[in-house]
Amino acid sequence: MLAPHHDGSPLHVSTQHPQLGDAVRLRLRIPVTHEEPLEVLVRSNPDREPFFNKAVHVGRVDGWDWWEAEVLVANPLHRYRWLVHYASGLTEWLNQEGVHRIETRDDSDFALVAHPAPPAWAGDGILYQVFPDRFGRSAQADARETPDWAVPAAWGDPVVPYGPEVSTQWFGGDLAGVEEHLDHVVELGATILYLTPVFPARSNHRYDASTFDAVDPLLGGDEALISLVRAAHARGLKVIGDLTSNHSGDAHEWFRAAHRNPGAPESDFYYFLDDANETYASWLGHASLPKFDWSSPELRRRFIEGPDSVVARYLQEPFDLDGWRIDVANMTGRLGAADHNAEVRRTIRQTMVDVDPDTLLLGESTNDATDDFQGDAWHGAMTYAAFTRPVWGWLSVPGSAAFGGLGMARSVIPSYTGTDVHAQHVRFTAGIPWRTRLHTMQALDTHDTPRFATNALPGAHPVALGMSVTLPGIPVVWAGDELGLTGTNGEESRTPMPWDSLSEHEADLTRYRELLGLRRSHVALRSGGMRWLHVADEVLVYVREAEEGSVLAVASRGFFDVVLDEGTLHLHGADPQLLWGEGRADAFGRGGVRLTGSGPSFTAWSLPGVPVPVPSPDAVAAEDAALLENAAQDAALVAGVQGAESTDTAAWAHELPPEPGAGQPQT
Amino acid sequence: MLAPHHDGSPLHVSTQHPQLGDAVRLRLRIPVTHEEPLEVLVRSNPDREPFFNKAVHVGRVDGWDWWEAEVLVANPLHRYRWLVHYASGLTEWLNQEGVHRIETRDDSDFALVAHPAPPAWAGDGILYQVFPDRFGRSAQADARETPDWAVPAAWGDPVVPYGPEVSTQWFGGDLAGVEEHLDHVVELGATILYLTPVFPARSNHRYDASTFDAVDPLLGGDEALISLVRAAHARGLKVIGDLTSNHSGDAHEWFRAAHRNPGAPESDFYYFLDDANETYASWLGHASLPKFDWSSPELRRRFIEGPDSVVARYLQEPFDLDGWRIDVANMTGRLGAADHNAEVRRTIRQTMVDVDPDTLLLGESTNDATDDFQGDAWHGAMTYAAFTRPVWGWLSVPGSAAFGGLGMARSVIPSYTGTDVHAQHVRFTAGIPWRTRLHTMQALDTHDTPRFATNALPGAHPVALGMSVTLPGIPVVWAGDELGLTGTNGEESRTPMPWDSLSEHEADLTRYRELLGLRRSHVALRSGGMRWLHVADEVLVYVREAEEGSVLAVASRGFFDVVLDEGTLHLHGADPQLLWGEGRADAFGRGGVRLTGSGPSFTAWSLPGVPVPVPSPDAVAAEDAALLENAAQDAALVAGVQGAESTDTAAWAHELPPEPGAGQPQT
Repeated sequence: MLAPHHDGSPLHVSTQHPQLGDAVRLRLRIPVTHEEPLEVLVRSNPDREPFFNKAVHVGRVDGWDWWEAEVLVANPLHRYRWLVHYASGLTEWLNQEGVHRIETRDDSDFALVAHPAPPAWAGDGILYQVFPDRFGRSAQADARETPDWAVPAAWGDPVVPYGPEVSTQWFGGDLAGVEEHLDHVVELGATILYLTPVFPARSNHRYDASTFDAVDPLLGGDEALISLVRAAHARGLKVIGDLTSNHSGDAHEWFRAAHRNPGAPESDFYYFLDDANETYASWLGHASLPKFDWSSPELRRRFIEGPDSVVARYLQEPFDLDGWRIDVANMTGRLGAADHNAEVRRTIRQTMVDVDPDTLLLGESTNDATDDFQGDAWHGAMTYAAFTRPVWGWLSVPGSAAFGGLGMARSVIPSYTGTDVHAQHVRFTAGIPWRTRLHTMQALDTHDTPRFATNALPGAHPVALGMSVTLPGIPVVWAGDELGLTGTNGEESRTPMPWDSLSEHEADLTRYRELLGLRRSHVALRSGGMRWLHVADEVLVYVREAEEGSVLAVASRGFFDVVLDEGTLHLHGADPQLLWGEGRADAFGRGGVRLTGSGPSFTAWSLPGVPVPVPSPDAVAAEDAALLENAAQDAALVAGVQGAESTDTAAWAHELPPEPGAGQPQT
Repeated sequence: MLAPHHDGSPLHVSTQHPQLGDAVRLRLRIPVTHEEPLEVLVRSNPDREPFFNKAVHVGRVDGWDWWEAEVLVANPLHRYRWLVHYASGLTEWLNQEGVHRIETRDDSDFALVAHPAPPAWAGDGILYQVFPDRFGRSAQADARETPDWAVPAAWGDPVVPYGPEVSTQWFGGDLAGVEEHLDHVVELGATILYLTPVFPARSNHRYDASTFDAVDPLLGGDEALISLVRAAHARGLKVIGDLTSNHSGDAHEWFRAAHRNPGAPESDFYYFLDDANETYASWLGHASLPKFDWSSPELRRRFIEGPDSVVARYLQEPFDLDGWRIDVANMTGRLGAADHNAEVRRTIRQTMVDVDPDTLLLGESTNDATDDFQGDAWHGAMTYAAFTRPVWGWLSVPGSAAFGGLGMARSVIPSYTGTDVHAQHVRFTAGIPWRTRLHTMQALDTHDTPRFATNALPGAHPVALGMSVTLPGIPVVWAGDELGLTGTNGEESRTPMPWDSLSEHEADLTRYRELLGLRRSHVALRSGGMRWLHVADEVLVYVREAEEGSVLAVASRGFFDVVLDEGTLHLHGADPQLLWGEGRADAFGRGGVRLTGSGPSFTAWSLPGVPVPVPSPDAVAAEDAALLENAAQDAALVAGVQGAESTDTAAWAHELPPEPGAGQPQT
């Protein structure tokens, strides 16, 4: 797999968060053992028309040739791919799927995103997910009356996994209870606390909000949230909330005002299906969850638009939340012929930028997140297609109960090979910008799934966790995973935290602290490049690379003995330094490594940083000339200005490369 | 390649042009030699959330098991894929790319389209492209004065291939000249005449219109177009025009009114970059082609919206054009952060539907057409990615000059194998609905490319033409191709038609008449299914299938000896009947065929139709039960109505399959 390489990381892209019109330098590296290129080009796609910038050779370092081109960012989503022509006549395209000898589709191009940047803390973060009813119960909770919908449970009771009580079983966890255990979260190494909904509702999960105007008194009300966020911030923890933009509960004040009351101002907030506002559209046909109609300007004003909206309110004093995770983001604003999704998500993000740009916005889209996640609003996805399900398929006991997305007669996790894991991971990350990828949740499980540990192959938990902290994306700890808890479905996984027996889980906790710490201590694991080195049914080898230092990772289901050819890694004569795990790495020649070990296992090594070229004076001159030429081209295109080279002979020529003597601008 | 199969054709989809909310029956067929399914499901994606309908086994016929499911069309673009669970634990997904053992992305799903249907004549049609300056010159042309921009040429003069004269060399062809030669077009077998622009301009190609209010007097004016269309209609020919929605010429009356005149009503039609309306955005920086700013309501009103717009005017009496091809459709409305493309294309189509729904709308998008071509406006694309370039790569002399899209230092056609052709064709058709695919232009070349014959391998022209008439899509004849003309680039390919020497081209003409006739006489080639049977570097074998009869096609670059296993085809004991070409097909067993021959060659055979099952009483009962169950599910989802099964336990459950005793609705 020693091939030309590019990804969105700082090694290869000069500006991580460009503005429209910015010049960005892109770098491609090609192993010296590869055929020598005749020409290296970047194909951008401004306004959806192919456009080529020449790259120049800027240096050869440690077995790799580096090529660089400059592009001007022409659209908020500026897609590009590499094209390399070889003297033999071979042509190679490089996009986010890899190297191709045939043409590729726009939707798998690399992409620069010129929308406002995500907060700096987000991509560097580790997310810890808390379900407020089940995390911690403060002493104040004892004084609270059981609500009419609830069936009280004691903290140590088993969670009801099936049947009507799944959403009424009430353990009485509250926000003060969360605050009491913040040190646990911090000591674990997490940096972002994600709370599932905290608004009043008629269920333990609170995805059926009855208002967005106040925090549920059962959780301690507004004061408890304010106090929790303050305490979290004091510890360096960010806190994000959870909003349901697709629906409210049928007990919501807006719905109650409008239901059977066609004259109500909230009447157009929902899809009422008859003149009496009796029947209405709801989430998957469930009457308790009436679906919002986002064509309503008043709904937008109250909920998502401007500084007085719900979206804005909790990001400001005194609440100061640091962002939102949006529930059922994929279905939001979509019904029949209506599709307001893009407007809604962009409005949410704009409101956030206006009140506090240093906030994070994640959207739930449990399957394919590609179309909606091009960087115009959601910073990342809560999704299971790229990581969670393939990892389960590889590392679960065959025949285990599955979750989600497969509509099965018998709900069995499909068996995956390592090759399948790689293919699916690439397939579902190739369609999103690098920046979105770095901000997408990489969960072993969540409150909507069984817990991974339930069906994991013996010894496989560290493998999955190791992958989640070393592959690009935000690692997620679903509260309780760090204790090795189990749960056979998304209900049973909502386990009350067993605070009294933490000492029984010391091995699990230590593993979590170590592996989360690994990520925190290596910039390459947070923002470094991503290069697959070896893919096989039992083992996956990849390296996260940065100028400051790299991390080599081996995730294995069984025995492995993998030889990475000379030239693969940058070792500068040193041996890889073991960071975690028990695999062996024996360096040979220049940049070759033999990796051996048994499995299931995860091993990581630290490597020296990737050396980048210092261009020679000749290279600098060539580069300057080419970059100027490219910049002139770009400028003409991007600004659409009247150029001196203009000629009407070009009307037909946009599909034609320049010909000798054609006198046409180079397009 | 004997695998489960589905495509958008009537064999597999009950309703080709459904309305929103319609029930559509989908059929999957699985070879009996395949592992027996435990469960067959259709996964739809209404409002972008996965949703499963069960299929029932409706019968076994001639070696294939047929499964059927009913879905309700939930969105104007209703995507779906198949999911088959086998008793072994194997899971297979089937989408437009083929069969997968890992999960697939939404954008390669099959798709039903509930937007207004394309005209019935379009998908059945064969398009003949005419460049008015070069097709026919009537006697009236001699009387016309040479315009100031033009350099006159005599009909037999060579076309200037490079330099400033490419767009000023004026042969003086006119619409009366086109009308004089309509019988040629009809006798060839074409059914749709496509005229590149006919509006006044300052170039021979007229993509730089100076007005849209009248047909160019140099072409004979409005009367000539009216007469031509009338004469074409009398012969059963449809006629479509060509509009530039991305830009006008800088001599356009709207631009002249607004340029350097900020107060003009047309001032907001273009992207002026300074307060004096001096500089402006233009197509790829060419000052002669100022780019339209589609945020202007007045521009929309004049050009594309409503019965008095340019778009509408020429589709009505007295002009009666049958549709439009839209130039630079991909860039239209896109510049920097602005993207009005979807609004513009949908408005154009809505205007057409309002004045005459029996009209065709094609959009130019020379590379990736995927995102814009989901059926909301463009019926099909003028594009080169799925067919033209891969076929060139396979069937051109290695090292030949290429066209377009590759930004090459040396413009060389990349060498493709048959396997590459298949992979690229699948890649670029997997992202568009079947209906779009049937209406996408399948050109060997156009006025924007060299002519295919220029660099074709000896004997390869019939192979490419054979593929263009047998693969799904609208075959295109670029006027002159039927005479075997050549041209080294998109300029030189705009050859004046050599009417005086037609007899020298009888062999070419005969081949065109025969192969176009093949398509006209077989419904399977127009709307039948598409199944790849054998893919190799030197040969491609596929079958177009319909209940009324099928056509087997072999496109070969060299010698071939291919055995299609028993069960592959439906032969009912008969031998394939040779329709065209010199390959051999020897049937054996039940539905097996051995195909032999040399190459380059194209051979087609007619086969009996595909037998479809007549369900047994038991199957009918099972089907009815399952369909009712599916329909109930669908209805709850699509209408979002308040169902009896509603329960608030489902708020969290959308990712979970139903569990025993869960009491949850089956979602």
